[in-house]
Amino acid sequence: MDSTPHRHSSVEEHRSVEEHRSVEAHRSAVKDLLKPLASSGRTERLPLLEALGRALASDVHAPLDLPPFANSQMDGFAIRTADLPPGGAELRVAAPVPAGAGASILEPGTAVPIMTGAMMPAGADAVVPIERAVPDSFPVPGADALVRLPATVAGTFVRIAGSDVAAGQLALSAGTHLGPGQLGLLAGLGMAEVEVHSPVTVLLITTGDEVVEPGLPLDPGKIYDANGTLLAASMRQAGLQVTRTGIATDDPRELQALLRKHSHGMDLIVSTGGVSKGAYEVVRQAMEDRDVEFLHVAMQPGGPQGIGTFDGVPFLGFPGNPVSCLVSFEMFLRPALTSLLGAPATRPLVKARLADPLTSPEGKHQVRRGTFLADGTVRLEGGPSSHLVHALAHSNALVHIPEGTAALAEGAEVEVWIL
Amino acid sequence: MDSTPHRHSSVEEHRSVEEHRSVEAHRSAVKDLLKPLASSGRTERLPLLEALGRALASDVHAPLDLPPFANSQMDGFAIRTADLPPGGAELRVAAPVPAGAGASILEPGTAVPIMTGAMMPAGADAVVPIERAVPDSFPVPGADALVRLPATVAGTFVRIAGSDVAAGQLALSAGTHLGPGQLGLLAGLGMAEVEVHSPVTVLLITTGDEVVEPGLPLDPGKIYDANGTLLAASMRQAGLQVTRTGIATDDPRELQALLRKHSHGMDLIVSTGGVSKGAYEVVRQAMEDRDVEFLHVAMQPGGPQGIGTFDGVPFLGFPGNPVSCLVSFEMFLRPALTSLLGAPATRPLVKARLADPLTSPEGKHQVRRGTFLADGTVRLEGGPSSHLVHALAHSNALVHIPEGTAALAEGAEVEVWIL
Repeated sequence: MDSTPHRHSSVEEHRSVEEHRSVEAHRSAVKDLLKPLASSGRTERLPLLEALGRALASDVHAPLDLPPFANSQMDGFAIRTADLPPGGAELRVAAPVPAGAGASILEPGTAVPIMTGAMMPAGADAVVPIERAVPDSFPVPGADALVRLPATVAGTFVRIAGSDVAAGQLALSAGTHLGPGQLGLLAGLGMAEVEVHSPVTVLLITTGDEVVEPGLPLDPGKIYDANGTLLAASMRQAGLQVTRTGIATDDPRELQALLRKHSHGMDLIVSTGGVSKGAYEVVRQAMEDRDVEFLHVAMQPGGPQGIGTFDGVPFLGFPGNPVSCLVSFEMFLRPALTSLLGAPATRPLVKARLADPLTSPEGKHQVRRGTFLADGTVRLEGGPSSHLVHALAHSNALVHIPEGTAALAEGAEVEVWIL
Repeated sequence: MDSTPHRHSSVEEHRSVEEHRSVEAHRSAVKDLLKPLASSGRTERLPLLEALGRALASDVHAPLDLPPFANSQMDGFAIRTADLPPGGAELRVAAPVPAGAGASILEPGTAVPIMTGAMMPAGADAVVPIERAVPDSFPVPGADALVRLPATVAGTFVRIAGSDVAAGQLALSAGTHLGPGQLGLLAGLGMAEVEVHSPVTVLLITTGDEVVEPGLPLDPGKIYDANGTLLAASMRQAGLQVTRTGIATDDPRELQALLRKHSHGMDLIVSTGGVSKGAYEVVRQAMEDRDVEFLHVAMQPGGPQGIGTFDGVPFLGFPGNPVSCLVSFEMFLRPALTSLLGAPATRPLVKARLADPLTSPEGKHQVRRGTFLADGTVRLEGGPSSHLVHALAHSNALVHIPEGTAALAEGAEVEVWIL
């Protein structure tokens, strides 16, 4: 059943047999269902680049200082500040220290040419940039040269060892999502590999006699399966390892057979469709004697949801419309995984002003699709209806209208998740 | 050379031989350099899921209506509104239309049980949800039953054919970045494959005698190569196909040999380090007789940049510090690719309030690293210095302080790119 708002008092009685849940309560139930994933300890050691998008399995403490040694922040002259009185002084130019060379020693009264990143000579306590030297260029190495330098405060243009991160310090904590910056840090710490959570495996089943695989001919009354691609792409983007069966028909025994055949060893089963209160609800029928609950979340779209286990494998039953599927994934499954495992990354939450007025069912959390614009506004794409996949494809954000709100004016502030 | 601000008037003369450029001018130069990629027409046809993160090579017009036929938005009864006077009426229940069944016909004076998504029978012009029916459940199929239904406005709970997108309409335009929503739409339109731009190939070379591959022992004065991993991960995340040579030493002939060996057939070469005005600038030296320009962008960090071609292959020389590399990629290369090819996706731009005061070199566009928080503020991570890779790893955003700004107070509004 679609989650369009009902206006009749009999709705409440009609549904009283089924649990009603807030979005938060269902998110927490999904997290509880998947909790074993966090404690399973299934991890793997990967070369850094292969770990992109994964989450750290354990804390990483810095095995060394960063920077590893005091070094120059500029191309210039390493000096001893005591050699430069208030008016500056002329110093003899010593042999240069290129980047990558080992330790050297500054003789008092000399200036050592030094490149950015090169190790500070012992005895030097500051760097004068080449632009502040007279002449403002380096002499030919070996030449007997003098350079005039201004007075300088100790520590100037010196990067202290361990000032970015000190050896032994917590560099990244378990559960950190590994993007380019995090992997760059691990590389800088000298690590070639990293221990990450193994990917969560999902069996994805779309259902419905009316649903046809894209690429095949379409008979009257049939529709192409958008859900399978939409969810498989969402899951892959989130780092899940997805296995798809073909589309299941409305025969519950066939669906059960498919599940028994493919669910072994999976971390999770996700189905689409067949979870509401119509006459042909194949997922409900197939799960009749299983530990699966069907309930209604106070959310539009995506209200009807199934949750439980099938042969011991965690199971989530999403509704049958594409937008409901996406919203179910983004509202429940994705945040549960982030909170348990650290990946995928959280969707950025921003506050935006509505470019259009809207209405919302007061008793539900409405999730609209929109385009978040550079001026801080969000434009709604399509209406609230859950079949509008073209409107979805022109959106870059989910717009949240919390329970208890019946209408919002143009310009009202809303919370937006950027997809 | 590091891009730390200089305070001495001699800086200007010292640099007068080299071009100074604004961020916008250099971004536009990078785009011009890569323009041949957009017109090369190198595309490939991929199954939908494989096209995740790619950009559409050409416009897609809808080959069919979505929805393909008028269908019910609810589980309920399809009716002819003319049969329901203001007070409602009792109608005979006809045979049901399940989802996926072909065309049927509504006999005047009857109510046809219909499931969400099922094709509207010819002659029906609205749906009454089951909750508004008396009794509010479907009779056993075949039973001779009556149902009492309220008066209803024509069109209620009917999804019109083509109301999401009409056959022939532009569904997605060339250059659209393909995420889950876009791929879901293509699937819903019955497409199993899609034509996308082929990935851009990049040869990535990190340079420096002081730079050591992670995992190897570290001698005094050496540092681990963070740049290679940081940039390769950024490029991979952006959909580029990266080839890495090993780390090049400071011998220009060696670097030239590496480039000649590996650059053939590449779309782009990116190097790190060796582009500023120090005494040992290997990239400058290796490019001496090539069509490569070295210049200074009014940006901190990431000021020194190289741009040109090597044996006809577009070349970008990024500076040697990790943060400068990331900032160069995000400010120049990534947006140039997005603007030419449609992928990678644009970084979300949001306005945020500074959690900390800051200073910035007035003549430069400063890019700081920060954590964008749910309350709409951004906390700076580390100082402006470009070697702070630990601070970078704790950031999720780039904070822009435009040219002409010397200081900002806590609470000041800034533009932020979410990484």
